[in-house]
Amino acid sequence: MNSGIDPLDSDTATLIEAYFDRLWPIMRSITGEGVRQTHDILSELVPLERIEIPTGTICHDWKIPQEWVVREAYVITPDGERILDIADNNLHLVNYSIPFRGKISREDLDKHLHSIEGEPDSIPYVTSYYAPIWGFCISHKMRNSLVEGEYEVVIDTDHIDGSMTMSEAVLPGSSSDEVLISTYTCHPSMANNELSGPLASAFLYRHLAALKNRKLTYRFVFIPETVGSIAYLSLRGDRMREKTVAGYVITCVGDRAPFTYKKSQREDSLADRAAAYVLQRQGDGSNRIRDFFPFGSDERNYCSPGYNLPVGVLARSWPGEFSEYHSSRDNRDAISFKSIASAADTLFEFCKVLEVNQVYENLFPFGEPNLGRRNLMETTGAGRTRRDHIDAIKWLLNQASGNNDLLSIAERSGINIDKLDEAACKCLDAKLLKIASK
Amino acid sequence: MNSGIDPLDSDTATLIEAYFDRLWPIMRSITGEGVRQTHDILSELVPLERIEIPTGTICHDWKIPQEWVVREAYVITPDGERILDIADNNLHLVNYSIPFRGKISREDLDKHLHSIEGEPDSIPYVTSYYAPIWGFCISHKMRNSLVEGEYEVVIDTDHIDGSMTMSEAVLPGSSSDEVLISTYTCHPSMANNELSGPLASAFLYRHLAALKNRKLTYRFVFIPETVGSIAYLSLRGDRMREKTVAGYVITCVGDRAPFTYKKSQREDSLADRAAAYVLQRQGDGSNRIRDFFPFGSDERNYCSPGYNLPVGVLARSWPGEFSEYHSSRDNRDAISFKSIASAADTLFEFCKVLEVNQVYENLFPFGEPNLGRRNLMETTGAGRTRRDHIDAIKWLLNQASGNNDLLSIAERSGINIDKLDEAACKCLDAKLLKIASK
Amino acid sequence: MNSGIDPLDSDTATLIEAYFDRLWPIMRSITGEGVRQTHDILSELVPLERIEIPTGTICHDWKIPQEWVVREAYVITPDGERILDIADNNLHLVNYSIPFRGKISREDLDKHLHSIEGEPDSIPYVTSYYAPIWGFCISHKMRNSLVEGEYEVVIDTDHIDGSMTMSEAVLPGSSSDEVLISTYTCHPSMANNELSGPLASAFLYRHLAALKNRKLTYRFVFIPETVGSIAYLSLRGDRMREKTVAGYVITCVGDRAPFTYKKSQREDSLADRAAAYVLQRQGDGSNRIRDFFPFGSDERNYCSPGYNLPVGVLARSWPGEFSEYHSSRDNRDAISFKSIASAADTLFEFCKVLEVNQVYENLFPFGEPNLGRRNLMETTGAGRTRRDHIDAIKWLLNQASGNNDLLSIAERSGINIDKLDEAACKCLDAKLLKIASK
Repeated sequence: MNSGIDPLDSDTATLIEAYFDRLWPIMRSITGEGVRQTHDILSELVPLERIEIPTGTICHDWKIPQEWVVREAYVITPDGERILDIADNNLHLVNYSIPFRGKISREDLDKHLHSIEGEPDSIPYVTSYYAPIWGFCISHKMRNSLVEGEYEVVIDTDHIDGSMTMSEAVLPGSSSDEVLISTYTCHPSMANNELSGPLASAFLYRHLAALKNRKLTYRFVFIPETVGSIAYLSLRGDRMREKTVAGYVITCVGDRAPFTYKKSQREDSLADRAAAYVLQRQGDGSNRIRDFFPFGSDERNYCSPGYNLPVGVLARSWPGEFSEYHSSRDNRDAISFKSIASAADTLFEFCKVLEVNQVYENLFPFGEPNLGRRNLMETTGAGRTRRDHIDAIKWLLNQASGNNDLLSIAERSGINIDKLDEAACKCLDAKLLKIASK
Repeated sequence: MNSGIDPLDSDTATLIEAYFDRLWPIMRSITGEGVRQTHDILSELVPLERIEIPTGTICHDWKIPQEWVVREAYVITPDGERILDIADNNLHLVNYSIPFRGKISREDLDKHLHSIEGEPDSIPYVTSYYAPIWGFCISHKMRNSLVEGEYEVVIDTDHIDGSMTMSEAVLPGSSSDEVLISTYTCHPSMANNELSGPLASAFLYRHLAALKNRKLTYRFVFIPETVGSIAYLSLRGDRMREKTVAGYVITCVGDRAPFTYKKSQREDSLADRAAAYVLQRQGDGSNRIRDFFPFGSDERNYCSPGYNLPVGVLARSWPGEFSEYHSSRDNRDAISFKSIASAADTLFEFCKVLEVNQVYENLFPFGEPNLGRRNLMETTGAGRTRRDHIDAIKWLLNQASGNNDLLSIAERSGINIDKLDEAACKCLDAKLLKIASK
Repeated sequence: MNSGIDPLDSDTATLIEAYFDRLWPIMRSITGEGVRQTHDILSELVPLERIEIPTGTICHDWKIPQEWVVREAYVITPDGERILDIADNNLHLVNYSIPFRGKISREDLDKHLHSIEGEPDSIPYVTSYYAPIWGFCISHKMRNSLVEGEYEVVIDTDHIDGSMTMSEAVLPGSSSDEVLISTYTCHPSMANNELSGPLASAFLYRHLAALKNRKLTYRFVFIPETVGSIAYLSLRGDRMREKTVAGYVITCVGDRAPFTYKKSQREDSLADRAAAYVLQRQGDGSNRIRDFFPFGSDERNYCSPGYNLPVGVLARSWPGEFSEYHSSRDNRDAISFKSIASAADTLFEFCKVLEVNQVYENLFPFGEPNLGRRNLMETTGAGRTRRDHIDAIKWLLNQASGNNDLLSIAERSGINIDKLDEAACKCLDAKLLKIASK
């Protein structure tokens, strides 16, 4: 289980690339060995705790599916050529296919083929978790070139009772208030959607683990999409509803586009405000904020009316809106390892905003306290220049009514939240402020 | 009382025209036989129940005026010509004039004349319900051409104790929640203001009466303007305050302009939201929404602070803002019978929005329910295309927290409310939703 | 103490100029005789009551400083020339300097000099209330021309136990609800900042004192900046928190720029709404409204979280944002006496809005009351023209639900608040309205 790479000895993008290359070839699905191998590798970066939910377990409205066992799958053409072999590309087999072995005509085979008409060279990614079928995914060009004749189909798969694999890592802080980071590990060989998500999340974990005096508790969740978040909520949802102050689903953060943030259902949750605060101040202003909509990834479960958690989504190009989406073209060429590293950095910025986002109460609320006496401002002066650090103190003291969090003070004042946090530390030292009780 | 026209055998605009022609010549006022004749004719379309309020009855701050009896009114010129005869145009007599019979000079007659200086050919519409005067309305051109000499004035009118006539028709639905449709029948021969209003309302009634599974109860009110709505509120106001979910005053819907909607005093009432929803999606975007103001027609009484009902106004050109307003030029040429028919259709659209505007509660609120298992979405796929009907289901389930009505979900999602209603029906069938109790 | 000028015998700007000239040369500071002389002169205009707070008194987080006694201060150059003499310009001495007498080198003297590098001819205004230092303020040109050699420094000052001087004048109205007018009198010879403020406030007092049937009570406060408002709040703050409905800090209203209004912390307080209402309708639209920020003048104390009073600031050019600020260039040439007079007039407009800003309750809330019967509108008419005074009555009656103040009705209707007040008087006479109890 040791990769031979010491994670701390290499620059992040290079390290991400190394992990990417190990994770890429694994045949993942919503259940099965591929997921376990994937989580084993990620465990080198994050101390994941495995949750195996037995096949057939009822989780809210869903039943945990069987494990998928896949040994081999390919087709032999009338000319004896072996094609559509999952050893070449694991997208060739419709994910979760039932077993099949037999000889069939080109016409009958074609009924089981999936291709993309407008993209002659792409192999699509197709799944059928809840309908027992078999099928192959093929480039449209190859599909059109298949000759008449008899084809031998080999799909050596099984669906067995076992369990569905999820992993979590809870990084504690001094407060039990939680931030959720959720990403999914059920897609086979695709790069932006999905290896970018687990990799950015894993490296975010490392940033947070290194943070001194961490206040918040971080809940990292690596799950199969949809049924995974529902199963996870059925286990942890009550606590999450009570404790989650913000959360993010991480997906498609590997391409070269600016960030897109999709708001939580509440649309003004702390998660949304922290993300908007960071993204709007970053770069050239091309990051985008989107309103919530209830389809997409696991956010639709976190934001379902019974939970309504403050959970948004961080992506770059939006899933479904970039041309490589759910096809063999979503590969190494479609992404940049630096993009994944910078996504981890940006998420870390979100978390740092959440970390400093206290609500303070002014202990000298009747008029401005005497700052000069406490060496918090100069005592001689012409009053002709603004001093940023003093403005920050004055905003903070004025707004420290016990109702405004630091982020709202940053938003209102236009002063950087880090500057306000520095001011807060000075004022705490000077006993001008206290942290408001909830 | 039978018009000889079977209402269901003819297209609506033609039918409206036939009723218009019968209603046009009647000498209406706030009280009297003209109103009764008018309501008799409208009763062929709507099963009106007559309310006769006796003269002198105190209704809130008002006293019901006497009935006006008008037999003939005209002037004989010094040349012996009979002019200003109400047999030619019932606008010639100041409405509710006291009787007068006598010979007077041109100068004295002129003190009793009303004309419009800038419109030489128009006869104005003038009333004097609450000051006992007599007068004639005359084109400015004719007024200027009156020769010196003695004029014989004949005004054979009476004010007698009797009653003020109002009519209502309550079309029941499965809920006792009510929609108010209010229009007035006190103006003599004018087309846009006012025959368009009662005619559009009557045909709206017919649309609604034909609606299967009608949920809401519709209260149609045909009354004299101002004193009529006050008297009606004095009778029905307590119930209306309790039951009215939306309401519309209908006036000036006969000309060829786009629609204008004037909001209720609340400005975000369900009436306002439903009207805005329909009007903003209709046609070329030229429909207008106006803020509330407390003058105009009966909405000022419905929206008075003691009632503050959710009642707006539907018009095309705004009363007072089109050149034919309150003059003999507001005639057949100023309107189109298709405009009246389409106003009835548009009001029916408002009502259909109100009909479907349920508040739903998700019965599987913990994560998205399994739609595939219920055949509500496909189970195999590449996830590369959006499906409108599935988006509608997902929006609905996500927002069905028991707080959001369907209209607010349509506004937020951008999905047509009819599509959402279809989705709701499927989800009710699948027992995923229930209608929220209030 | 009699100036020989009868304030009522002269036009306001001329009168302001006369007072300005008497107040200009006085050596003011946060404490001491200069402040008392200043308040003596202002007492001719406003019946000020003196509040002397003893040195050392604890006021919230602050301690009242000693009185500053200043007799003379100057420097003798190596050439025997007497320079930096406060007899020439009282800005030359750092305000609140400790005494010093001695001979020192140019280098040592320079450590005690303050000048403005970019403004060679300006003498800066520098204070040191809370650090015991001495210093001189000098034009940068003169500073650079000082020759080597020995300089004789004479600063004959004292800090003695005594008291800090504040004055108040409470102009009673029929209601105990209060409007605060606060201005400061601690700056030595500067014109816009600060003589414009006390002078505009004093003339506002005269306008208000002449107002018949004054409803509100006006609290005028003349204090040293910062420590003054804190000390005043420590005395009167509890009452002010209970009674203050609006308030304004007056500063820098003497220059020729349009008005700037800075909102109170609440940002939608009655003070803010009244100021915005007046300023947005005034002149060519160049008046500006600024959001609140917690630095500046005494508003930061009035708006501190323990009080959070509805107090904004009226200025023209903003303190710190005009080039003459806190320097010898802020003199007679930088201001216009008409500007000060018009500031008093504009503040009077604010107050008149506050005076009429009642909340009314419609006594006939069920439908529109019969206005014709009460001679509040014409009873005969063609309904073809709008009548402003009737619109005002109708808006008022419609909105008189006991929740809307007159200002909100003016904002919503677009009708001038004076017209609405006239309408309210008519409706009160007609017993259609009453003033709502709180």
